[in-house]
Amino acid sequence: MARLTEDAKGVYVIAVTPFTDDGALDLGSIDSMVDFYEGAGVTGLTVLGQLGEAPKLTAEESRTVVERVLKRLDGRLPVVVGVSAPGLAPMRELAEAVMGEGAAGVMVAPPWTVKTDDQAFAFYQSVGEALGETPFVLQDYPLTTNVTIAPKVIERIFNEVQNCVMLKHEDWPGLSKITALRAASDSGAMRRISILCGNGGLFLPEEMGRGADGAMTGFCYPEMMVGVVAAYAAGNPDRAHEIFDAYLPLARYEQQQGIGLASRKYVLAKRGVIKSATLRKPGAKLSALDIADVERLLARQAIRLKEIGA
Amino acid sequence: MARLTEDAKGVYVIAVTPFTDDGALDLGSIDSMVDFYEGAGVTGLTVLGQLGEAPKLTAEESRTVVERVLKRLDGRLPVVVGVSAPGLAPMRELAEAVMGEGAAGVMVAPPWTVKTDDQAFAFYQSVGEALGETPFVLQDYPLTTNVTIAPKVIERIFNEVQNCVMLKHEDWPGLSKITALRAASDSGAMRRISILCGNGGLFLPEEMGRGADGAMTGFCYPEMMVGVVAAYAAGNPDRAHEIFDAYLPLARYEQQQGIGLASRKYVLAKRGVIKSATLRKPGAKLSALDIADVERLLARQAIRLKEIGA
Amino acid sequence: MARLTEDAKGVYVIAVTPFTDDGALDLGSIDSMVDFYEGAGVTGLTVLGQLGEAPKLTAEESRTVVERVLKRLDGRLPVVVGVSAPGLAPMRELAEAVMGEGAAGVMVAPPWTVKTDDQAFAFYQSVGEALGETPFVLQDYPLTTNVTIAPKVIERIFNEVQNCVMLKHEDWPGLSKITALRAASDSGAMRRISILCGNGGLFLPEEMGRGADGAMTGFCYPEMMVGVVAAYAAGNPDRAHEIFDAYLPLARYEQQQGIGLASRKYVLAKRGVIKSATLRKPGAKLSALDIADVERLLARQAIRLKEIGA
Amino acid sequence: MARLTEDAKGVYVIAVTPFTDDGALDLGSIDSMVDFYEGAGVTGLTVLGQLGEAPKLTAEESRTVVERVLKRLDGRLPVVVGVSAPGLAPMRELAEAVMGEGAAGVMVAPPWTVKTDDQAFAFYQSVGEALGETPFVLQDYPLTTNVTIAPKVIERIFNEVQNCVMLKHEDWPGLSKITALRAASDSGAMRRISILCGNGGLFLPEEMGRGADGAMTGFCYPEMMVGVVAAYAAGNPDRAHEIFDAYLPLARYEQQQGIGLASRKYVLAKRGVIKSATLRKPGAKLSALDIADVERLLARQAIRLKEIGA
Repeated sequence: MARLTEDAKGVYVIAVTPFTDDGALDLGSIDSMVDFYEGAGVTGLTVLGQLGEAPKLTAEESRTVVERVLKRLDGRLPVVVGVSAPGLAPMRELAEAVMGEGAAGVMVAPPWTVKTDDQAFAFYQSVGEALGETPFVLQDYPLTTNVTIAPKVIERIFNEVQNCVMLKHEDWPGLSKITALRAASDSGAMRRISILCGNGGLFLPEEMGRGADGAMTGFCYPEMMVGVVAAYAAGNPDRAHEIFDAYLPLARYEQQQGIGLASRKYVLAKRGVIKSATLRKPGAKLSALDIADVERLLARQAIRLKEIGA
Repeated sequence: MARLTEDAKGVYVIAVTPFTDDGALDLGSIDSMVDFYEGAGVTGLTVLGQLGEAPKLTAEESRTVVERVLKRLDGRLPVVVGVSAPGLAPMRELAEAVMGEGAAGVMVAPPWTVKTDDQAFAFYQSVGEALGETPFVLQDYPLTTNVTIAPKVIERIFNEVQNCVMLKHEDWPGLSKITALRAASDSGAMRRISILCGNGGLFLPEEMGRGADGAMTGFCYPEMMVGVVAAYAAGNPDRAHEIFDAYLPLARYEQQQGIGLASRKYVLAKRGVIKSATLRKPGAKLSALDIADVERLLARQAIRLKEIGA
Repeated sequence: MARLTEDAKGVYVIAVTPFTDDGALDLGSIDSMVDFYEGAGVTGLTVLGQLGEAPKLTAEESRTVVERVLKRLDGRLPVVVGVSAPGLAPMRELAEAVMGEGAAGVMVAPPWTVKTDDQAFAFYQSVGEALGETPFVLQDYPLTTNVTIAPKVIERIFNEVQNCVMLKHEDWPGLSKITALRAASDSGAMRRISILCGNGGLFLPEEMGRGADGAMTGFCYPEMMVGVVAAYAAGNPDRAHEIFDAYLPLARYEQQQGIGLASRKYVLAKRGVIKSATLRKPGAKLSALDIADVERLLARQAIRLKEIGA
Repeated sequence: MARLTEDAKGVYVIAVTPFTDDGALDLGSIDSMVDFYEGAGVTGLTVLGQLGEAPKLTAEESRTVVERVLKRLDGRLPVVVGVSAPGLAPMRELAEAVMGEGAAGVMVAPPWTVKTDDQAFAFYQSVGEALGETPFVLQDYPLTTNVTIAPKVIERIFNEVQNCVMLKHEDWPGLSKITALRAASDSGAMRRISILCGNGGLFLPEEMGRGADGAMTGFCYPEMMVGVVAAYAAGNPDRAHEIFDAYLPLARYEQQQGIGLASRKYVLAKRGVIKSATLRKPGAKLSALDIADVERLLARQAIRLKEIGA
């Protein structure tokens, strides 16, 4: 299987983890979900992320999910696996296991104990050493990790840690960070690396305008990310904004902690992608009023998509 | 001047504080800003909030701002003043001063030291005592204060602290909180209080649908909040969503820490509401790329508003 | 093997995890460490705690450590195992495994997402359900978990979650919490549960004075905890303070994040308890100046212990 | 009045703010307190610190406290004033006022919004500019501010911000930071600045051993800090430790948030330094059991001090 490189572009969708109504892994839904994402035109999949409810899985279940996804894809699309852990040993253990099964790379967020510039660099340097040959994604997500990494520290990490090949950009606000990193590689101060954007896609058109290579996020309509990225690639930012705006009211609704993921799974279940919208415990549940909100947004979105011919 | 009561409805706009290019208070722009907000149809003004850069003002400047706003309004609209402080004595000092000058009420957010349910209640009980006759707003803003207040604690506060008359709701996600509080007053478990919503207006239509009385936030187009609240009051939620959706791309852009306020002031200056877009130091500045983003959003917004006849 | 109950008393020492100089598990040192703790008169052992570097172990290594400790003890002393995890499934998986091997109970700290009183209760209620028959310890450690649990919430948890049998008390300051909980059980408002105290033992004499049943902490001289608890049990608080004061300068030195654990392992290695003082990466290392500090404290401590005949 | 310089040495005691039983400022007790501190041999006073309950004072009360202290001292000892504020304008306003009245310098802690190395530097650079000629102390207190400043950033601040003349060192653990800063000035990489240590004095002997110039903290027996610093200055570290150890049990007891300050004021009132032990609301109160704890510690401390002839 091809390994993740600095040239990665497009949409790596953050996959949900499907459960049955009583919270067991739903392997059949993993298959249908993989088929759906592939059909939607994504470039790759990212599994075992926070929004994949990874921390709620046992070690064995984590392996099962990755195996099932890889088997269904059969090498057609690359898979990135979240392996963040408080220690290097468990991180390496999971990374080696999934790379052995055919993953393209792994993703690592910093622990909350990282405070200063040098500590951030030292953490990723030790990750790079621990992972050896495995290419990895630096997940820069201050809102959740409580760790802020300055652009010049990211520059230093990419310059000195060779197996770090991609930035999952979800600093907020972070547009100036993309601009700074692109300026650094344009000037030769750092190698050009892949930048895919998270944050639920909420700033995707502007991020593409600053030089991002695509998206890595899990909004329940991957068609949005695929459409925005394609329109930008085709040199048509106005079309990108048009598509984005049509999906924005729902994408915004997904940006609610807990309820947002429940809303995402509700829509995926409604679309037939997974069988059950259930989150494993402890997890949020939509109320009847929440569902009414989502249904109204879906109805309005369908009308608007028709209007713009998307 | 009328005092703030539980019956407050509509849009209390969070006013910016206008500065000259070199960071001095711009009193002339306070006048034009007040006129603009009044012309836009807001119900009241809230000054000295976080997004009014209140912590950057000296005590004397804070008084000057309040006096100028009150003088310009001349009693036509009520004014709420942010008085949050780490101690009760400075909070009471400012509250007494502004009430003496004609403010309608004050607003208080909890200090980060509040952790448990009883501590939250005890804090607002002591605020109620310290403020005496002055009506006040409970600002529930966990994202900034790091204090989460459960619905049943809010219920208890409103039941036992009589001068607490309004909730500035900006928990995120918080739709279920509005629902819980309205159920509590419908059942007679608590008195019905005013709920105005913040969070940049990002969930305003859904919040109105849950029973909110309006908005208290500072988006650079107060027309959006006024329009959404009016459409809901007129029993037309679809029109409310239509108006909301047209402004949403820009409202979302304002939800960037630091840059968001700079963007808000940029638009207000461009609209002629204030003379300079300057934030007092330390404050963010828009780059040329940020400005291009905002201009694109404004152009697209103008087209969309025309399409929907708003 | 006997299971942990509300009657537990004495000293459950938080065991370090011994590594070789290059960071591999040192099983031989586990044996010598177990022998040392037993010889020092502790009542039980707690393994896989934060200060046992648990998050740095792979799942397999965690099992290996527990097995080795249990085998060496051969049922002579009870063993509590830290099983805190972000999800219930991995927590239950580890708990079932170690209980099957002969552990006496497990310990669970709350995740940082817990904010309100009801959320704290709901978390421990779901832990109780997930663990089934397994007795468990509520670890109340706000300084690290960032979760504050009010005494009345602890009371409610112990009243409604029957397999929660012990409080590891390390709120700081927390003396009034012990007093409140003892008053609650004295009045019959809650059952009397076991309270063992952490925080490096830094308030142990005062905590015993408030009604604690002993200590659960890992200071490098378990003789201190054993001596203080025994003196209190014998009705001799002055002797307890005398012993405590002699060890306090070193115990205080151990209260430095990172360096503190390195200092603890340095002393244990010097005493021949474990072979290497190494912390697994990422971990702190003592400088020559740090070592000089510790040596001075050890020398002074030896003199003082002699003076008081301890 | 002499201004604070890089040559400052000795003990700057953090003064409490005395209140009457009902929470009013007690000016008479300010006088007796100043006399007491002077009699205890301190080198200077620091007022309006966190543990001086500064955030609970009105702006006018803050000025009154500073004036009263300065008047009583009549230039015999230098006074540092805490002026931390979320904005530069109110910080400068207070600084100018107190310098005009005869303060020797001011002290500034960073706001929690500071995250990266460059942000920490930029904050102190802007403070330096805002304060103009006024010498100031960099308060490095991560436990309270949640801001960690790496040694090399402190080095850069002192190199580029000329009116920053002293570090109030209370990083925890922070011994290696003192070592790094002294190495930097020894090698000529930065000018030698004054380092006074806080943290309740809990690591004072070790900090002096690393090259600190003294203490800036408010333990209720300033005799401890004066004695330790003097013994170190006299080349007698063993005597320093002996004095320190005698006071340590009580100093440790003061390290409890809230209750610690109540305990400090209780002892000061008992010693006749201030009339009332009251903390202004919201503030902790000692229970009868807390008082019994403190009394036992005082009795034991008196005996031990006699034994060592201190």
